[in-house]
Amino acid sequence: MPHITLNSAEPGIRGLLRFRPETGRPLSELAEVLLRGPSTLSRGERELIAAYVSGLNDCQYCTSSHSATAAAQLPGGRALVDQVRADPGQAPVPAKLRALLAIAAAVQRGGHQVTGGHISAARAAGATDLEIHDTVLIAAAFCMMNRYVDGLGTTAPDDPAVYAAGAQHLIDAGYLPPAAP
Amino acid sequence: MPHITLNSAEPGIRGLLRFRPETGRPLSELAEVLLRGPSTLSRGERELIAAYVSGLNDCQYCTSSHSATAAAQLPGGRALVDQVRADPGQAPVPAKLRALLAIAAAVQRGGHQVTGGHISAARAAGATDLEIHDTVLIAAAFCMMNRYVDGLGTTAPDDPAVYAAGAQHLIDAGYLPPAAP
Repeated sequence: MPHITLNSAEPGIRGLLRFRPETGRPLSELAEVLLRGPSTLSRGERELIAAYVSGLNDCQYCTSSHSATAAAQLPGGRALVDQVRADPGQAPVPAKLRALLAIAAAVQRGGHQVTGGHISAARAAGATDLEIHDTVLIAAAFCMMNRYVDGLGTTAPDDPAVYAAGAQHLIDAGYLPPAAP
Repeated sequence: MPHITLNSAEPGIRGLLRFRPETGRPLSELAEVLLRGPSTLSRGERELIAAYVSGLNDCQYCTSSHSATAAAQLPGGRALVDQVRADPGQAPVPAKLRALLAIAAAVQRGGHQVTGGHISAARAAGATDLEIHDTVLIAAAFCMMNRYVDGLGTTAPDDPAVYAAGAQHLIDAGYLPPAAP
């Protein structure tokens, strides 16, 4: 049961975006730009960073949702997502993505935890300044989304089919709410 | 020195908003709605929550900026901001604001840290569901902003006059970037 009375039975952040559309709009726009906008990081890689950070924050709804969305867009599928979430240092991902995941983990612990060493390692693996920027902001944004979703006690379905369907919808239609009729 | 090469010498989040306007726009819109949009919480109270959370996250730029903006809009001024940051349980603020600050501190620790007890205490002190929602989202949003600002190693001026001038600009003009000419 959510801590506040929402105006729908929608789970996770979906119920919150509907409850307060004034804040829902910029939150959805931020997700759309960061996770789906033009980028040299693939949509699957960016969803993987979101899923990984959400797991570190122990947010069931966001972890399940973004793991499903990443799995559907990465050649390695669900197995790769699970490997990254369990041990990103050993998972079979390119060195650049591994270095960016290490930056994301540092951001999750706190902004001051990102060191020059993290940045040099990412650069040595080929990451650009924009990729480093977007990785930091994706990780920071999920530290917000996860706290928003769990801080208000929203519900998270247990059925994986719900997240698979949600992932397909996100892949087809994106994060922006449908335009008003 | 920031971890990445920005396209201006602007400190803190200002340099980041300018570097990546695609993400800067929704971030600015979120801040405008949450901290200055229509609300039964005053702008000073909302800036105080932002300053308090930023202090808990040890983010010098955001703490200084939002403390100055809160101080300029609260009858208790800078002294009250400093009292709240030092010990919100003892600071001379109304019971409702004290209960909302306790929710904000829980969110800063993690979404699961917000308990039914925090929510009941806020309700007993007169907080509405929308006030509780906005408090959780303000606290969560500053867990993002603080990580974004410090995770990229942005600079923070030491001179309080810089933050006082910035606060006056925010009070006069808000968080949205000027419209394109």
